[in-house]
Amino acid sequence: MHSSIDFYFDFSSPYAYCASTRIDALGAEFGREVRWRPILLGPVFKQMGVAPLVEVPIKGRYALHDFARTAALFDIPYSHPERFPVATIGAARAMLWIDAQHGPAKAREFAHIVFRAYFAEGGDISQPEAVLAAARGAGLDSDAVAQGMQQEDIKAALKSGIEAATARGVFGAPFIFVDDEPFWGFDRFDYIRKWLRRQAAQAATAAREKTY
Amino acid sequence: MHSSIDFYFDFSSPYAYCASTRIDALGAEFGREVRWRPILLGPVFKQMGVAPLVEVPIKGRYALHDFARTAALFDIPYSHPERFPVATIGAARAMLWIDAQHGPAKAREFAHIVFRAYFAEGGDISQPEAVLAAARGAGLDSDAVAQGMQQEDIKAALKSGIEAATARGVFGAPFIFVDDEPFWGFDRFDYIRKWLRRQAAQAATAAREKTY
Repeated sequence: MHSSIDFYFDFSSPYAYCASTRIDALGAEFGREVRWRPILLGPVFKQMGVAPLVEVPIKGRYALHDFARTAALFDIPYSHPERFPVATIGAARAMLWIDAQHGPAKAREFAHIVFRAYFAEGGDISQPEAVLAAARGAGLDSDAVAQGMQQEDIKAALKSGIEAATARGVFGAPFIFVDDEPFWGFDRFDYIRKWLRRQAAQAATAAREKTY
Repeated sequence: MHSSIDFYFDFSSPYAYCASTRIDALGAEFGREVRWRPILLGPVFKQMGVAPLVEVPIKGRYALHDFARTAALFDIPYSHPERFPVATIGAARAMLWIDAQHGPAKAREFAHIVFRAYFAEGGDISQPEAVLAAARGAGLDSDAVAQGMQQEDIKAALKSGIEAATARGVFGAPFIFVDDEPFWGFDRFDYIRKWLRRQAAQAATAAREKTY
């Protein structure tokens, strides 16, 4: 039994959105579960003293071009949001409550709907109504979700989740840990594959050496 | 006849070093020449108001890990330099002079030796002696190179080359233009492949439509 893969993301990150469409398939290739962990990049960037990518001169313009091109090259529907980036604290809290109440599969279903709403359907997921519409789309009672995302324990869980992420070295999104190996970016998916294959090859060699 | 690919790099960039080992093969896959264009990241970062990658809190530590891991995953010899990053103005000027005097093939041979000296053999390429040793390794007269890299026209060529690069949108290394499409990073090589294949497919479709 292999350990799981941790997938950290902010709902407002285009590269995290791209990653969200591929991460479970990547995990499945290697027989690993993926744990989806919503975080907020705002507090992370603040701690690091860096600006959001699109606000960096020159690089920001390239990033806007690269978001849409990356999605296109991987056949992922993408329409750059009118408001970008936006606050995703509501969506992140809702996901944590859904996970706690209905389990990770339902939380993931909700997450896919939120990402799609923001990056493919022109929705503004900083608005509570958009978050609740996503919840309804996942077959959930939106009144229960509206109440759940206001719970103190859920608020605290998001806060401590972000603290744990930064303590682990997360500084952007998507950020993926395979065992304790950190990978930053959708552009590291092939590196993760190479890395996991090497680990498997090394384990096989070690097992053979033990036998002789 | 396809147009060429422009490959911008700083001799002090680990990802540019990785790219330097693969860029010509990438060009050859699509029948394109690669133009190697040495630049200096120092003035580029200064203009953008950003710090070198390894100086950014948290992210810098990850980058150090990712440099060596990336090289290992692609079977590129790598030993992180004791002094990093270093000034590469001498190496860049020498390359421009070699290119002007002996042509791009010789300049490229020199560039490979410089990259290898810095990232695989423990050399300090900020030192003139290391630059001249690389020139000798490429079969060049090091006295001529030493004199050439001090020429005013060569100094001016590097300066204007960097200005042209930033005007074109270069903000890091490696930075690659395929026609006018910009790609930043060794991790974009597969994206370049995808992009070029799509261009070829679109051109083929357009040609078919013209025929009917």
